[in-house]
Amino acid sequence: MKKFVNDPMDVVDEMLEGFLAVNARYVRRSSGHRRAIVRADAPVPGKVGVVTGGGSGHKPSFIGYLGRGMLDAVAVGEVFTSPPVPTVLECIKAADAGAGVLLLLGNYAGDVMNFDMAAELAQDEGIVVTQAIATDDVGAGFKDAPDKRRGVSAEVLIWKCCGAMAERGAPLAEVARIATKVNENARTMGVAIAPCTVPAAGKPTFTLSEDEMELGVGHHGEPGVARVPLQPVDRVVDQLTEQIVSDLPYASGDEVITLINGLGATPLMELYIAQRRLQQNLDGRGIRIVRSFVGEYFTALEMAGFSITLLRADRELQDLVAAPAETPYLVQV
Amino acid sequence: MKKFVNDPMDVVDEMLEGFLAVNARYVRRSSGHRRAIVRADAPVPGKVGVVTGGGSGHKPSFIGYLGRGMLDAVAVGEVFTSPPVPTVLECIKAADAGAGVLLLLGNYAGDVMNFDMAAELAQDEGIVVTQAIATDDVGAGFKDAPDKRRGVSAEVLIWKCCGAMAERGAPLAEVARIATKVNENARTMGVAIAPCTVPAAGKPTFTLSEDEMELGVGHHGEPGVARVPLQPVDRVVDQLTEQIVSDLPYASGDEVITLINGLGATPLMELYIAQRRLQQNLDGRGIRIVRSFVGEYFTALEMAGFSITLLRADRELQDLVAAPAETPYLVQV
Repeated sequence: MKKFVNDPMDVVDEMLEGFLAVNARYVRRSSGHRRAIVRADAPVPGKVGVVTGGGSGHKPSFIGYLGRGMLDAVAVGEVFTSPPVPTVLECIKAADAGAGVLLLLGNYAGDVMNFDMAAELAQDEGIVVTQAIATDDVGAGFKDAPDKRRGVSAEVLIWKCCGAMAERGAPLAEVARIATKVNENARTMGVAIAPCTVPAAGKPTFTLSEDEMELGVGHHGEPGVARVPLQPVDRVVDQLTEQIVSDLPYASGDEVITLINGLGATPLMELYIAQRRLQQNLDGRGIRIVRSFVGEYFTALEMAGFSITLLRADRELQDLVAAPAETPYLVQV
Repeated sequence: MKKFVNDPMDVVDEMLEGFLAVNARYVRRSSGHRRAIVRADAPVPGKVGVVTGGGSGHKPSFIGYLGRGMLDAVAVGEVFTSPPVPTVLECIKAADAGAGVLLLLGNYAGDVMNFDMAAELAQDEGIVVTQAIATDDVGAGFKDAPDKRRGVSAEVLIWKCCGAMAERGAPLAEVARIATKVNENARTMGVAIAPCTVPAAGKPTFTLSEDEMELGVGHHGEPGVARVPLQPVDRVVDQLTEQIVSDLPYASGDEVITLINGLGATPLMELYIAQRRLQQNLDGRGIRIVRSFVGEYFTALEMAGFSITLLRADRELQDLVAAPAETPYLVQV
């Protein structure tokens, strides 16, 4: 295993030590738990708390988006491992300013179980908690049971929109409505050409031969819908676009926000080549791009690959995506 | 070669097509040359033009930093190849608003030759041009001839400080003074554990065995000062810090800005583990960190590795680094 680590068991705590020092303008550790990381000024009086969390190794997700206009608290787990109940509970408590807490999560068994238990315990202590689960991954299959799909890169857009809505002073039900609206209008699909290695495991999460790629791969290396021969990126983007567009489906006249997310080791140059083809594909279908994000937003350690997310966005969602944010890895004026 | 590309000869033009569409708020193509990319509102009346450029494959450098408070024009070359004279000349002309142009470059033979020729041609047309060459790479050796060193990640800080100075309305000589001041106070050293592959070449820029790392590697895979066995990241950071600190030298009582730059495939988690050790090392030497950047600022395609940059910063440089910027990949309020 070639990695820049010390003891593989220490990676999360050592990473946090660096992260908290560098980003002290935005974030701090909650006094109640060393892996409950909160916005520097949490809880913000009168504001709904927006809380999420998950396994580590997806940076800048999740802690990179703590701050004004996005997240209030993040429960940090071990690499690719759900944070335990006490961490999530502390995040809920640290984010609550009396207006309630929206708990956002991806659709992973461990997260669903632990977040649910933490929400119950918080409610026992008198905190109003609403949960919203992202299920945007078309690559997980389940065309007929979308509630079984994983949450992937659209989570970043859910945090952005809910964070902006909460910052406006909207009540919990309204902020939760936005989470559902973004999830219902978002679809993602990924592709990988090389796996990542979890430090404590010491070996790759999967293997691919020199001429193979995995279509529909998940954010932890979960198998996708097909293992296919290596192809020019235009052909790859054509297939991802077709799967995504036909799933919702997106239609001519729709306005969309796009996100091309690098999974870790894919050069930004290649993401922009994919972006170019996505533009051509959507243009050809009469779907209008109103804003695009291209970069590493939700990685899988050093996996080589990317995902495409489309969000059908009416005026309300466009305004929320464009709203100001001040976080370590997303600043918008 | 496993890459997300179409024809390897088309990567730069295809990348630009995606980049220009996504970032139209910040940048546009100059009407005079398809690879002269300029700030959307260039030339800015009364302002010194800040121009740079170089080979592609370093994204977000260089074009990701075009915009208010940083760069006015960037000459885009082929992957790891200097942009030709006409591209640089067009950038100078497009950035000049009558207050002159500061031409910033790394210390690479092709760049030095082409930029110099373009500057002469621009001066023939009556544009005042001053050049400043970055030489921050300790890993290139040349302790006794620092003008032979490569320019690497400190270039990002030079663009940031010169861009801020120009935005304030400072005259050309003052903006050029800042370039020299940043370069004189900055030192960088890198390390790699895996090479990158230039698409048109189709094979890795160098090879390392499973238990080797290259200390002092350059931004294109240039050999460094030593090839050593794989070590825990703390030991790696200790060696980089020692080389950097002893070179200037940085001393107890100094205030510094740090930049840990991922070269492409190294997870942000690992960069923060390195950051933690850098903090310990500087703390132990009585050197105070006033601001830190951690992320991918100046990559070498998908090389696995990182570099550490220190900038000794007085109040003037601290203010310039902290000044507002609005570019595709650096936004500061």
